[in-house]
Amino acid sequence: MLTTIKTRRSVRQYKEIIPKNADIKKILEAGRWAPSGLNNQPWRFLIVKNKGVINAISEFTKYSKVIKGAPVLILVFLDLKASYNRDKDLMAIGASIQNMLLMAHSLKLGACWLGEILNKKEDVRKFLKLDKNLELMAVISLGYPVKKKLKSNRKPLQALLINSALPLF
Amino acid sequence: MLTTIKTRRSVRQYKEIIPKNADIKKILEAGRWAPSGLNNQPWRFLIVKNKGVINAISEFTKYSKVIKGAPVLILVFLDLKASYNRDKDLMAIGASIQNMLLMAHSLKLGACWLGEILNKKEDVRKFLKLDKNLELMAVISLGYPVKKKLKSNRKPLQALLINSALPLF
Repeated sequence: MLTTIKTRRSVRQYKEIIPKNADIKKILEAGRWAPSGLNNQPWRFLIVKNKGVINAISEFTKYSKVIKGAPVLILVFLDLKASYNRDKDLMAIGASIQNMLLMAHSLKLGACWLGEILNKKEDVRKFLKLDKNLELMAVISLGYPVKKKLKSNRKPLQALLINSALPLF
Repeated sequence: MLTTIKTRRSVRQYKEIIPKNADIKKILEAGRWAPSGLNNQPWRFLIVKNKGVINAISEFTKYSKVIKGAPVLILVFLDLKASYNRDKDLMAIGASIQNMLLMAHSLKLGACWLGEILNKKEDVRKFLKLDKNLELMAVISLGYPVKKKLKSNRKPLQALLINSALPLF
């Protein structure tokens, strides 16, 4: 598990091979089994494979190249009708997305969690002719990675640990 | 991966055995390697093992029993100084928490993601004498599970999939 978590990268270039439907289903299953407050499961998914629609969605972000090159997109929405606490719902959706990214990686697929497009989330919703209750939270681009060795980094653990004046241990 | 994701449960009762420091470190490593927008890594962690402090924290939620019975707590905070977009930061913190829950489960530890305590997040922060820039996002209780077979359920995938008037495939 730790290796899968640590070797996952944002993959931005994809081969032209289309991922198998069975693998896409596993990824969605992973997203579906995330935890949420009161088990309200506020996440909704929209899968796009149609090239014309993928290209059109790509125009709503400055990272259009990543989206254009992806054979599959998973758009993740918050269902405002299912929402009970925005902070908790957003964390739950983050958990669901992370499940999907880990599942993709463990299937040797590459994915990128795209957030810049949220600047135009209302335009994306209208373009897709979706109900007002669906708020775009992320676009996940998905495909087989072109490059194998991608680097990343994180702050050292010591920089993330909080101390307290109280005795913690 | 899918099995780990699907068999993870919220574990609310723990044995008195203290989890190993090496395992707690693996869980924090998993949390550290989550993705975040612009790689801003807004998560901060506070570990508590001290019984007196655990008991005091338990008083800030109606689920005090879960917290009181846990040998270890991981408190997860958003560092408002590292924040750049609240929605994205909350999703990133959700991803970090999910990494920790999956890591705990894969180590045969049990964990519970507690959110009700956020109703008193300012009181918790003051009790711990923490800086105003640290906003409590979740408490994760951690320990070896007493019960082995816990059930859960999710909406069927069909109920989560969005359709569009546009041709998606």
